[in-house]
Amino acid sequence: MRQAGRYMAEYRALRQNYTLLQICRTPDLATEVTLQPLRRIELDAAIVFSDLLLPLEPMGIPFDFIQGEGPAIESPLRSEADIDRVRVFEPRESLGHVLDAIRQITHELDGRVPLIGFAGAPFTLASYAIEGGHSNSFALTKALMYENPSAWHRLCGKLTTVVADYLGAQIEAGVDAVQVFDSWVGALNAQDYREFAQPHTRRLFEAIDGRVPSIHFGTSTGAILPDMRDAGGDVVGADWRTRLDDAWSRIGHDRAIQGNLDPTLLLGPRDRMLRSAADILAQAGGRPGHIFNLGHGILPMTPVENVQALARFVHEQTRT
Amino acid sequence: MRQAGRYMAEYRALRQNYTLLQICRTPDLATEVTLQPLRRIELDAAIVFSDLLLPLEPMGIPFDFIQGEGPAIESPLRSEADIDRVRVFEPRESLGHVLDAIRQITHELDGRVPLIGFAGAPFTLASYAIEGGHSNSFALTKALMYENPSAWHRLCGKLTTVVADYLGAQIEAGVDAVQVFDSWVGALNAQDYREFAQPHTRRLFEAIDGRVPSIHFGTSTGAILPDMRDAGGDVVGADWRTRLDDAWSRIGHDRAIQGNLDPTLLLGPRDRMLRSAADILAQAGGRPGHIFNLGHGILPMTPVENVQALARFVHEQTRT
Repeated sequence: MRQAGRYMAEYRALRQNYTLLQICRTPDLATEVTLQPLRRIELDAAIVFSDLLLPLEPMGIPFDFIQGEGPAIESPLRSEADIDRVRVFEPRESLGHVLDAIRQITHELDGRVPLIGFAGAPFTLASYAIEGGHSNSFALTKALMYENPSAWHRLCGKLTTVVADYLGAQIEAGVDAVQVFDSWVGALNAQDYREFAQPHTRRLFEAIDGRVPSIHFGTSTGAILPDMRDAGGDVVGADWRTRLDDAWSRIGHDRAIQGNLDPTLLLGPRDRMLRSAADILAQAGGRPGHIFNLGHGILPMTPVENVQALARFVHEQTRT
Repeated sequence: MRQAGRYMAEYRALRQNYTLLQICRTPDLATEVTLQPLRRIELDAAIVFSDLLLPLEPMGIPFDFIQGEGPAIESPLRSEADIDRVRVFEPRESLGHVLDAIRQITHELDGRVPLIGFAGAPFTLASYAIEGGHSNSFALTKALMYENPSAWHRLCGKLTTVVADYLGAQIEAGVDAVQVFDSWVGALNAQDYREFAQPHTRRLFEAIDGRVPSIHFGTSTGAILPDMRDAGGDVVGADWRTRLDDAWSRIGHDRAIQGNLDPTLLLGPRDRMLRSAADILAQAGGRPGHIFNLGHGILPMTPVENVQALARFVHEQTRT
C-alpha cells in the first residue's frame, strides 16, 4: 500500500517545489520520497514511489493531477476509434525513469528491506482512461464494456501487454515483489468480473509468474475474492469491509493474505487503532502468510505518530 | 429506488425553470415529477420525489446542490460544538411541503399503485453533514466517530429522532411503505456498523414498526447484510456486488429482499440487460418476497426505452 505521501512533513516540503509527476519522473526525487517513510517508521518493505497512471501517457492518453481533485485525463476514451488509437509501448524506454529509480532505491536500501514495485490492473487503468478521473458509478466504463465487448477486450489487451512488460522491467531493475492494484474492480459483480476483467488480469499474472512474489489487491471485493484468487497472485489483498478471517476463508489458506486495517482508524485515538490491529492479528491466528497492512492507502491527514505506533505494535505482537 | 430524474426529457424540461430544491419544496412540482415515470413505465409503485438531505436544513445544516458536483453543505459539522448546535425540529411544520406533496400524489394515484416514502438513515445523513458532500473515504466521518463516540451518538440520536418523526408524518400523510436509505453505510466494517450505526437504525425501525412495510437499503453492504437485517426492515435491499441468492441467504428467507440489477446495465445493449434481469429472477427462484429493482439509483444517461423494456420484461416473467 502507498507508504509515502502528504501525511509526512518532509514530503509536503518537497511538494512545495515539485509536482507529483515531477517527483515520479525524477529518479533522485522518487528515491528520496520512497525512503522517507523508512527513516521514521519500522517498515518491513519499501514501495517504489510512483503512480498507477504513468503507463497511460506513453499509450497516448495524457493526464495531469488537478489540485484537490485527483487525476484528470485530457481526452478520455469514449469510442472504438479512441481505443484503436491507444499505443502499446516499450516501458524500458518511456518509463526508464521508474526503472532508474528502482535501481537507485535498491542501491540505497542495500538489502535492509525488500523493495515492492507495482502497477495498475487492466480494469482499473481502463476505468481511469474511460471515465477521465475518479468515478463513483463507473457508468461510462461499464457502458463501453457492455456495448462493445470487443473494443473493451482490445483496450484491456493493450493495457495487459504494457503492464506485463512494465512489471517485468521492474523485476529486472531489482524489485523483490510486485503488487497489482485492481483498486476499483469491486464495482463489478462476479459474473462481469469473470467476463471482463479476469482474463486480462490472469494473463498479467501468468506473464510474471514465478519471477518474484506477487500481491493482488482491490477494494469492495468481498464478493469476488475467489475469482481474484483464480486470476493470480501469491498474496491476495482485501480491504476492511470483509473480516480478515472471512476473506482468508474465501481466498483459501493455501494463499497468503494482505490486510486489512481501515486506514481511517489511523486518524483517531491510538487505543482504538491498536485494538483493531490486535483483532486483525487474532483473526489471522498467527498463521504464516498474513501480511499485516492497511485495507487501502494511507490518508493525507494521518498523524505520522500513529503510523509509527502501529508498526511498532504489530512487530511487538508478531515477533517470536 | 429513485425513479424520476434526469433520464427523462420531461424532468429535464422542468429543470430548465426550477432547481432540484425548488421542485422538492413545491408540492405541485414534486407531484408532477413523481408521476412522470408512471406515465411511461409499467411500475408497481410510485416513489415520492424528494431528497435525502431535506431534513438537514431545519436542523441548522443548510446546503445546496452545485451543478455537476452534487450536494454541498455550507458549514459541515467538524466539532462537538457544531454537533451541539444541531436542532431537533418538528417535520410536520418544516417539511410540511413534502407531506402536502404526499397527500396530493396519493389523491392523484387514486389507489392505482402504492406510494413509497423515504428518508436517509442516521449514518448516511451524518456522513453528509460531516463530509460536506460526497466522499470516497468517509475519513472525516469516521475520524469524528472514533475520536468522539459520544458526540457521534448525540448527532445520530438527533438525526434518528427527526427521521423517525419525519417517516411517521409521511405515513400519516398517506404513504403505503417507507424506504430507509443507508446508502453509504457499506463503508463500515461489521464491528463498526454494530457500534456506530446499528443502534440508531434499529431505533428508527422500531419507531415505525408495524405501521407500514419498510425497506432497508445500502450499497457495498455484502459483509453487513445480517447486521442490517437485525437493525430492522421488512425488506432488505442489496446492491449488485453480491449475487441475489447469496444476499438472500445472508439476510434469511424469512425477510423479503429488494434488488439487484446493476443500473449501468440499463445503459448498454438490451439483450444483456434482459439476460441479467432473467438471471436475478432465476436466483430469486420465484419465492414470494422478492422485489425486483435496480441495485442503486437510475443513472442520468439511461435511455427511457430500456427502463420501459425492463419493467415489461420483469412483468412478463413473473406474472402467473
